[in-house]
Amino acid sequence: DIDRDRFVETMKRQAEIGANENGGLDRLTLTDADREVRDWFRDQLDALDLDVRVDEMGNTFGRRPGASDDGAVLLGSHLDSQPNGGIYDGPLGVVAALEFLRTLEDEGIETERPVEIVNWTNEEGSRFQPAMMASEVWAGKTSVEAAYETTDGDGVRFVDALERIGYRGDTPAEPQGPYDSYLELHVEQGPFLERGGHDVGVVTGIVGLQWGEITFHGEANHTGTTPMQYRNDALVAASDVITGIRRLPGTLGDRTVATTGDIDVEPGSINIIPEEVRFTFDVRDPDDDVIAEGLERIKAEMRAAAEREGVDWEYEERMSAASVDFADRCVSAVREAAADLSYDAREMVSGAGHDATHAASVCDTAMVFAVSEGGKSHTPDEYTSWDDCHAAAETYANAALRLAGV
Amino acid sequence: DIDRDRFVETMKRQAEIGANENGGLDRLTLTDADREVRDWFRDQLDALDLDVRVDEMGNTFGRRPGASDDGAVLLGSHLDSQPNGGIYDGPLGVVAALEFLRTLEDEGIETERPVEIVNWTNEEGSRFQPAMMASEVWAGKTSVEAAYETTDGDGVRFVDALERIGYRGDTPAEPQGPYDSYLELHVEQGPFLERGGHDVGVVTGIVGLQWGEITFHGEANHTGTTPMQYRNDALVAASDVITGIRRLPGTLGDRTVATTGDIDVEPGSINIIPEEVRFTFDVRDPDDDVIAEGLERIKAEMRAAAEREGVDWEYEERMSAASVDFADRCVSAVREAAADLSYDAREMVSGAGHDATHAASVCDTAMVFAVSEGGKSHTPDEYTSWDDCHAAAETYANAALRLAGV
Ligand SMILES: NC(=O)NCCC(=O)O
Ligand SMILES: NC(=O)NCCC(=O)O
Repeated sequence: DIDRDRFVETMKRQAEIGANENGGLDRLTLTDADREVRDWFRDQLDALDLDVRVDEMGNTFGRRPGASDDGAVLLGSHLDSQPNGGIYDGPLGVVAALEFLRTLEDEGIETERPVEIVNWTNEEGSRFQPAMMASEVWAGKTSVEAAYETTDGDGVRFVDALERIGYRGDTPAEPQGPYDSYLELHVEQGPFLERGGHDVGVVTGIVGLQWGEITFHGEANHTGTTPMQYRNDALVAASDVITGIRRLPGTLGDRTVATTGDIDVEPGSINIIPEEVRFTFDVRDPDDDVIAEGLERIKAEMRAAAEREGVDWEYEERMSAASVDFADRCVSAVREAAADLSYDAREMVSGAGHDATHAASVCDTAMVFAVSEGGKSHTPDEYTSWDDCHAAAETYANAALRLAGV
Repeated sequence: DIDRDRFVETMKRQAEIGANENGGLDRLTLTDADREVRDWFRDQLDALDLDVRVDEMGNTFGRRPGASDDGAVLLGSHLDSQPNGGIYDGPLGVVAALEFLRTLEDEGIETERPVEIVNWTNEEGSRFQPAMMASEVWAGKTSVEAAYETTDGDGVRFVDALERIGYRGDTPAEPQGPYDSYLELHVEQGPFLERGGHDVGVVTGIVGLQWGEITFHGEANHTGTTPMQYRNDALVAASDVITGIRRLPGTLGDRTVATTGDIDVEPGSINIIPEEVRFTFDVRDPDDDVIAEGLERIKAEMRAAAEREGVDWEYEERMSAASVDFADRCVSAVREAAADLSYDAREMVSGAGHDATHAASVCDTAMVFAVSEGGKSHTPDEYTSWDDCHAAAETYANAALRLAGV
């Protein structure tokens, strides 16, 4: 049983750090606000007398020994936010894991397996791409060195930002000892649980995704004196591709989503033809073949638009993640935990990427989703009632206990 | 006869102020670089013993008395630049006027009418809209107060920026005494003179233009978890309108040009659906009815796109200028000056706005165009050979002498 009052208090406490005037969070990874919430998190782990490690990627772990030295059960999520993001998102999962550990402590429960809590670095991927970069390194899918060299929009290197906030740890960014399983709680971020009137989500896997950045290089010139046929307008080319991306879902899989989230134009003057335009895209689907086909179509649109407008193109991949199916035994643990507590649970595939994507390649994994009202996230309007937060946290704790054993 | 060496030296001298590493200028209006070039300009006027006035809008005049007190002939252009703009643009006209006055002085010529030189404030309109704001105030078409309250992209008020550089003068921003005529030399900024193999352009008028800014307000949400049909994507709506603007010219007048030069997206994250997108447009045509029809079509596209994507729209006019026909006697003066000098001259309508637009409502007006190689302007690649600069300056000086009388 999770202590509801303390749980809600802890959620509110974390939401003060990096709070903005919209009721949301500005707690981008490796900023001062991120440092502050990490310091707070470490204090909570210290108060529980956990064995705390910070690894080379800034991932912060706290370990509670079990009766045996068997593989540990890893629990957690992330405390970083999007720009002007919501207060639930990843923090709900970190706080639920923390409350689970506090409850074990309060009730003097010794688990069979060691239990570990983690706060992953840079889950959001808004400042540094790819998202979930630090769990990816931890899972051995990319190198620390490559991650360190990643730069943000201002050219700041990941490693420098990490050192600046004092979270470049000594522990190698890789599993320290065997893990039995990883369990993550997160808000759904989509509308399905609320629309279906469910209490909690049992997540069976994660869609694959492809992120890219396209840059068109045209030629700056005067908007008034340059006849249309002599133009090389980078923004017209970009707009063509963006509307093409909008049309992808209707012509690919019925679960496909495709979006352009960011665009920048140079020189950006009302009376200068755009010379250089850079924009991003994000395509997702549960089926990796559909994503591959989507990427081909976007590239074809890109080449056609460049040809039409007489501009040069450049393509850079920003992230590529295959879809993931979670392990049956972990999904079952969540399903049974929800049933035990008489919650109306829905099984679903996550449309968002999570650190569970990478953990799933290290050990058996599953996730619990909390209801997202209106399906809103990555905005201060993101909202999950305390009832729904609590239902998810209880399901999570129960499932974790099943995996850890008593 | 314009002293070619001194003329070229003076052009090069002004191009040092605000020079950037691309060989162009960053001399946006009311910046430190603009202050510096104004100080240099004032020194040149002082060296000619002119009677110098700075008006409330920062327009800077230098007057040379004539034999009579008849209406003066006003000559000049602007020294401000676009971001990363070219070195010829307006400065060529200011330097040509300066060289004309220097030549009168050198050769001890007394003109019948007084001759005045002017450097207009904020011709470019890149930082503060509308363009040609200060000649507009001077012509009595808008108030000093309204112009003062205009803000740049950072919210800085025009009046504060003007005071900061010390160019808020005392002279009322209105014609001081009668003017006979205004003559302006500028680079063509378009490709027609070069393509036709002409030496110089005789400008008979200026196209009308309409500038506007559209903002779409959608809803931020997660790119991965939000099904396509539940989205309110401000950038998709904007891209639809931008491609619509690109299609306008082909379906309106054959002289129509239409462009989006700037776009901004909030929050601008790879995995957040765009919440707010603001973008500009610029439509021009020699026929004001065509512009009015173009504006209606853009608004119709805006409303349709907003409806389709479920976003709110906001429209703000940024500038509206009717087309202008120059006075026959001034156009003739330019035509005859070119013929006198045996230059191959082409008559043309300017596709760019100029301070001449507003001067034309105060007194008879015309313009001289210099060849723009490749039709490039508002870019460091803007180029006019010294031969072509000189041809235009000689035509200009000759036409000015015709109007001023000896
Ligand atoms: N859960 C979540 O929003 N993760 C960020 C990566 C993504 O956009 O899916
Ligand atoms: N000549 C010139 O570029 N003026 C700026 C206003 C315009 O865009 O036409």
